[in-house]
Amino acid sequence: MKNRKVILAMVGLPARGKTYIAKNLSRYLKWIGFKTRIFNLGDYRRKLSGTCSNHTFFSIDNEHAVAIREKCCSEAMIDVCKWLGGDGEVAIFDATNTTRQRRAFLNSTLAEKMGYSLFFIESICDEQTIVESTVREIKSKNPDYRGKNKEEAYTDFMKRIDHYQQRYETLNEKQESYVRYLKTFNAGEKVVFYKPNNLIENKIINYLRSSHIRSRTIYLTRTGESELNFTRELGRNTRLSARGREYAQVLSKFINESDISDLKVLTSSATRSIQAAALIQAPKQQLKALNKMNWCEFDEATYVETKFPFPQDLTTKTGYRYQHDFTNGETYDDIIKRLEAVILQIEHEGNILVISHQKVLQCILAYFLDYSRNEIPNIQVPQNTLFKLTLSGYDYNLEHIPFDIPTIDTHEVEG
Amino acid sequence: MKNRKVILAMVGLPARGKTYIAKNLSRYLKWIGFKTRIFNLGDYRRKLSGTCSNHTFFSIDNEHAVAIREKCCSEAMIDVCKWLGGDGEVAIFDATNTTRQRRAFLNSTLAEKMGYSLFFIESICDEQTIVESTVREIKSKNPDYRGKNKEEAYTDFMKRIDHYQQRYETLNEKQESYVRYLKTFNAGEKVVFYKPNNLIENKIINYLRSSHIRSRTIYLTRTGESELNFTRELGRNTRLSARGREYAQVLSKFINESDISDLKVLTSSATRSIQAAALIQAPKQQLKALNKMNWCEFDEATYVETKFPFPQDLTTKTGYRYQHDFTNGETYDDIIKRLEAVILQIEHEGNILVISHQKVLQCILAYFLDYSRNEIPNIQVPQNTLFKLTLSGYDYNLEHIPFDIPTIDTHEVEG
Repeated sequence: MKNRKVILAMVGLPARGKTYIAKNLSRYLKWIGFKTRIFNLGDYRRKLSGTCSNHTFFSIDNEHAVAIREKCCSEAMIDVCKWLGGDGEVAIFDATNTTRQRRAFLNSTLAEKMGYSLFFIESICDEQTIVESTVREIKSKNPDYRGKNKEEAYTDFMKRIDHYQQRYETLNEKQESYVRYLKTFNAGEKVVFYKPNNLIENKIINYLRSSHIRSRTIYLTRTGESELNFTRELGRNTRLSARGREYAQVLSKFINESDISDLKVLTSSATRSIQAAALIQAPKQQLKALNKMNWCEFDEATYVETKFPFPQDLTTKTGYRYQHDFTNGETYDDIIKRLEAVILQIEHEGNILVISHQKVLQCILAYFLDYSRNEIPNIQVPQNTLFKLTLSGYDYNLEHIPFDIPTIDTHEVEG
Repeated sequence: MKNRKVILAMVGLPARGKTYIAKNLSRYLKWIGFKTRIFNLGDYRRKLSGTCSNHTFFSIDNEHAVAIREKCCSEAMIDVCKWLGGDGEVAIFDATNTTRQRRAFLNSTLAEKMGYSLFFIESICDEQTIVESTVREIKSKNPDYRGKNKEEAYTDFMKRIDHYQQRYETLNEKQESYVRYLKTFNAGEKVVFYKPNNLIENKIINYLRSSHIRSRTIYLTRTGESELNFTRELGRNTRLSARGREYAQVLSKFINESDISDLKVLTSSATRSIQAAALIQAPKQQLKALNKMNWCEFDEATYVETKFPFPQDLTTKTGYRYQHDFTNGETYDDIIKRLEAVILQIEHEGNILVISHQKVLQCILAYFLDYSRNEIPNIQVPQNTLFKLTLSGYDYNLEHIPFDIPTIDTHEVEG
């Protein structure tokens, strides 16, 4: 699979989830290692001509506004080229791109002239209930309507959609011979893809296939203290200590009493992880991909007795075991690789609880909270704490639910 | 993702690659661990009424033949239910299923009554050149035309297609509200999927997205002898021995002189694998997923000095380290898991050479040659040998190309 600089150009009417898809894709692509940036045409428009709470701006008859919008598009395209001309690997062009004319322009400039790979992502939604709830939930936070009456904002936005609807032409490979695309109907119910031809495009098909827009909660926690934490040994497959079993009890009580609908529990294949989930009343699945960072020979070491057998430069906080593969053991990069399928599964599931280990949870949190790779080693994942992730607008909110059980803090040294 | 018993029902005109897709899916699903069987309706027909080289059998006006074909369908469906009622997890129903009536019947019996998950896979091809070459290549080997004149067989088969064409109705979720499906157009150029809802269905989407029908050759080889083979130590990242470097030279000479178009080389990240590829004139990619079986602590052992530190039962040939995870190290199951993405990449690429290690190559060969999981440990992968896989009909042919360099045989002990 070729790995070129890629432009993902969104296509679709307003309130079809284009920005939601763009933000998710960006988060995912960054997490798996591609330098990705979103270029939102609405942001360019607001920068150039301020917020706009009147739909008439979007009428095709409004010549002044059309000129402004053309200018915004050109500026965004220049920035896209700057980004890809430098370090950037993926540019997500988040605009409506609803006409063949506009798409032909993107193709002639960005693909033919600049040589970038241009892949369209169209979101189509004919279920009016999805559209209406999107307009109410997301667009009420739209900067264009800040401080406005909600009902008026809703009505105006629906009229804005009408203006676009008049000129909307769905992607069609017969009439636009150059296009390559992915189309998603009604938030993933049906998906069509046409001629994806590189790794990134295949990754996003895979990703969009797995994700959904149903509301749900993601819970994460480490196992409680293990016997090895207690003896200050590293790694190995050990059992929970007495205090670890106490955490398993309070955690299970909390989860069971929260009465979470259709909860599913994912654990690693480590005994202490399975023990931690044992009392929870929900279907469970063990995944080796959730196992702790594998340190192989160092897994047998005691970190008190041996006073850190690691090379000195790896014990610093930043970059700590990040890319340096100093033994047969794993790096953060390796963990992210084996977590790719787990993240797709989590995206696919409803309410879910993941019971795993420190460094694995750092990587999972980095995904949902959009941390860059070099921030991962600094993400705090205290023991005896339940992490609760919920979507708010386009971003995830993290809530800490600590349980008061004494434990040994192993940040820095536990896999 | 729910994991129910699944029926994959093919849909499409004759010579649209249904059997090819069915065989590939079966091979893939078995390899990743699902008990899969193909039920080919043509085989039932030939069993019941012999081979048939005259297209008039397939005319809708042929009442006698219609009755036979109904009977075949019922028998095949009974066998599908027997298979899924027992051990079986996936049944692939390889028939044309071109009418809504037939599909509604499958749905009412297999899905509604029996409760199986019914997922349709439709192959559509409007590029006449693909259809014609399929008819010539594959159908000339069709048992119905065994011993017949090739040109007559071709003409008859094209008429058989016409009979089906008259009644063909493509899958349409608006008119067949119960359907869930994947459609592939012109051998994967465009793919549509609608409401896949379990792990198996998602796996096959992923698989069909990656595979193609262009002809190509897959080469596999182990690295040459390493310094550790020589000192009879296990594992570790070591360099090639003098004889290993000699193999790298003859291998590179052979490959370079074969002048393989657009060849790509995949190596593991082990030094000896990278060394083995160094002289080959082709783009290279290192994949950790191709690394040897990870034995962790045992990787440091010498198998002469320690006289096999493995538990006794694991040194037997069959089942050897297959599912028993006796250390932090890996099993064959683990290797297959990490190879899943590699297999999809190999399916996606054109001509390719994979330089890896014994147990990894056993798993890759098992995939292409359709070996069952418990046969894997017995697959012979001699050193200093190039393995050449080419497709012949629906199956892969394996050719051994040995190079005469003395080496230490490490079958049994090298990862």
